[in-house]
Amino acid sequence: MTKSSVLISEVGPRDGLQNCDAIMPTAEKKRWITALAQAGVKEIEVGSFVSPKLLPQMADTGEIVRHAIEIPDLEVAVLVPNLKGAQRAIEAGAHKITLPLSVSETHSLRNIRRTHDQVIEEAEAISNLIKGLPESQRPHFEGSLSTAFGCTLEGPIDEAIILRNAERLMAAGCDEVGLSDTTGYGDPGAMRHLIRAVRAAVGHENLTGVHLHNTRGLGLANVLAAYEEGITTFDSSLGGLGGCPTAPGASGNVVTEDLVFMFESMGVDTGIDLDALMATRDIVSAALPGEELYGFTPRAGLPLGYKGAPVPVAAE
Amino acid sequence: MTKSSVLISEVGPRDGLQNCDAIMPTAEKKRWITALAQAGVKEIEVGSFVSPKLLPQMADTGEIVRHAIEIPDLEVAVLVPNLKGAQRAIEAGAHKITLPLSVSETHSLRNIRRTHDQVIEEAEAISNLIKGLPESQRPHFEGSLSTAFGCTLEGPIDEAIILRNAERLMAAGCDEVGLSDTTGYGDPGAMRHLIRAVRAAVGHENLTGVHLHNTRGLGLANVLAAYEEGITTFDSSLGGLGGCPTAPGASGNVVTEDLVFMFESMGVDTGIDLDALMATRDIVSAALPGEELYGFTPRAGLPLGYKGAPVPVAAE
Repeated sequence: MTKSSVLISEVGPRDGLQNCDAIMPTAEKKRWITALAQAGVKEIEVGSFVSPKLLPQMADTGEIVRHAIEIPDLEVAVLVPNLKGAQRAIEAGAHKITLPLSVSETHSLRNIRRTHDQVIEEAEAISNLIKGLPESQRPHFEGSLSTAFGCTLEGPIDEAIILRNAERLMAAGCDEVGLSDTTGYGDPGAMRHLIRAVRAAVGHENLTGVHLHNTRGLGLANVLAAYEEGITTFDSSLGGLGGCPTAPGASGNVVTEDLVFMFESMGVDTGIDLDALMATRDIVSAALPGEELYGFTPRAGLPLGYKGAPVPVAAE
Repeated sequence: MTKSSVLISEVGPRDGLQNCDAIMPTAEKKRWITALAQAGVKEIEVGSFVSPKLLPQMADTGEIVRHAIEIPDLEVAVLVPNLKGAQRAIEAGAHKITLPLSVSETHSLRNIRRTHDQVIEEAEAISNLIKGLPESQRPHFEGSLSTAFGCTLEGPIDEAIILRNAERLMAAGCDEVGLSDTTGYGDPGAMRHLIRAVRAAVGHENLTGVHLHNTRGLGLANVLAAYEEGITTFDSSLGGLGGCPTAPGASGNVVTEDLVFMFESMGVDTGIDLDALMATRDIVSAALPGEELYGFTPRAGLPLGYKGAPVPVAAE
């Protein structure tokens, strides 16, 4: 059931930077994204189209997308909270659009001031917008089920609510749904269970990616469980950027460097050059001197004799 | 193949404290060990019988063992490098003795100045000593295969060497062997592979425990893989104490708090009260003010609505 390669989707420029107090200059964002792609990262969530008043860190997302889509072989993803954001994403040329739907309706109302019904309406509107485009210009459209493993406001979420929203996102026209452990409440058992349940509801092929946080240190264990369930796309953030800034080291995304180290050590190809990836930390550190970068592998260094996964040979 | 309960073996008082610069006063060690047991920890490696010149932090191990064996229902384990240490452990009344054999002979020579042949001779001598005791006084005797997933001096270790030493430890009279990822080189794939190989060599029932470090952040993922292979005993250290002090946060043992959180969240009973366990951090912090305690779960707190694993009901 497991694959010999996985797709690492770097979300640092979006989930990471939007949680930093300081704003990374546009030129430095471009340098970082270019360097990530040169290290072999094949998908990057480069920003989000939200109000610059709410998230000034993301105000240059249009310019960043236009830069990133010029990089060969890079899938350029963005987050959008609504139809207006999707319109801007499409204008800029993004390849992939993710609309979050928090399965905790309390959180949804606090986060984007929308009920589940209202988020589904946005999904339908975005889907209709995409369908109106020439086929070659249509971005991939994912509905992301956030707080899927529990919410800091509501606690555990009734599974029936999660499955119903997964089905409604697909019915609204999403190409697939994703599962997000926004709060770091997930564990490997819950991971396996919910992946199976959502796939039973919307079809195996319509859930391929997870977005996991490392809030309670279980990030990589949860990744392993998801991988063994056949999940092939994993969001993560360089240096573990992201999450809640009030709990240092405790709340960011899964650390990309450690994630790549785990998969490559297991012989699972990520296509990423780990030394080159780790070197991109310097760009972030220089641009955001106040921001601490996490990650065990960068501090400990690679093992003596480390080789990583064999690079797959393309069929002739 | 997996069990509904696991044994967490707390190694902080040994592996943790021997890597701290400061020496925890004997009275504080006793308080900590008592509090750990009261939190539900059922096995504690309380110290090691090594030269106090080499490790002054462990000089009071005899007194600590004599304290700990008075605590009801607590398995009291110690590390010994040789026959002399085993004699002292038995005199003090330890329930379990672990002799490390570094499968990297280079490391073995540097660490305890003994070749593999010489370590096996010690194992035989310890086994003979134990056999000479009345049955009720015989401690459990484990041979621990350290640097099993790679060595910072030698790199990867030939599997044939690991298996031969596992067989020789059993032939020398050990009750079981353990696998130690001393260097944090292991990954979930290597974990599964080596557990199966060692069990094929020495028998399934003769490998039940692993001792894993979190050097590259894969500690809990490796635990998960080992658990799914049927391993039931997991060493860990409160606050991740232990490992190399020159790489802060990066090299300690698996953090007991996060390990317990993972298992309990999965519905796997550890018998440990997580709040009471986390409260014992205060004892360590007060006794070793210069020492930083790690752990994601203690910083983030328990999830809203967290229940932990159901407590098994004993058969009537």
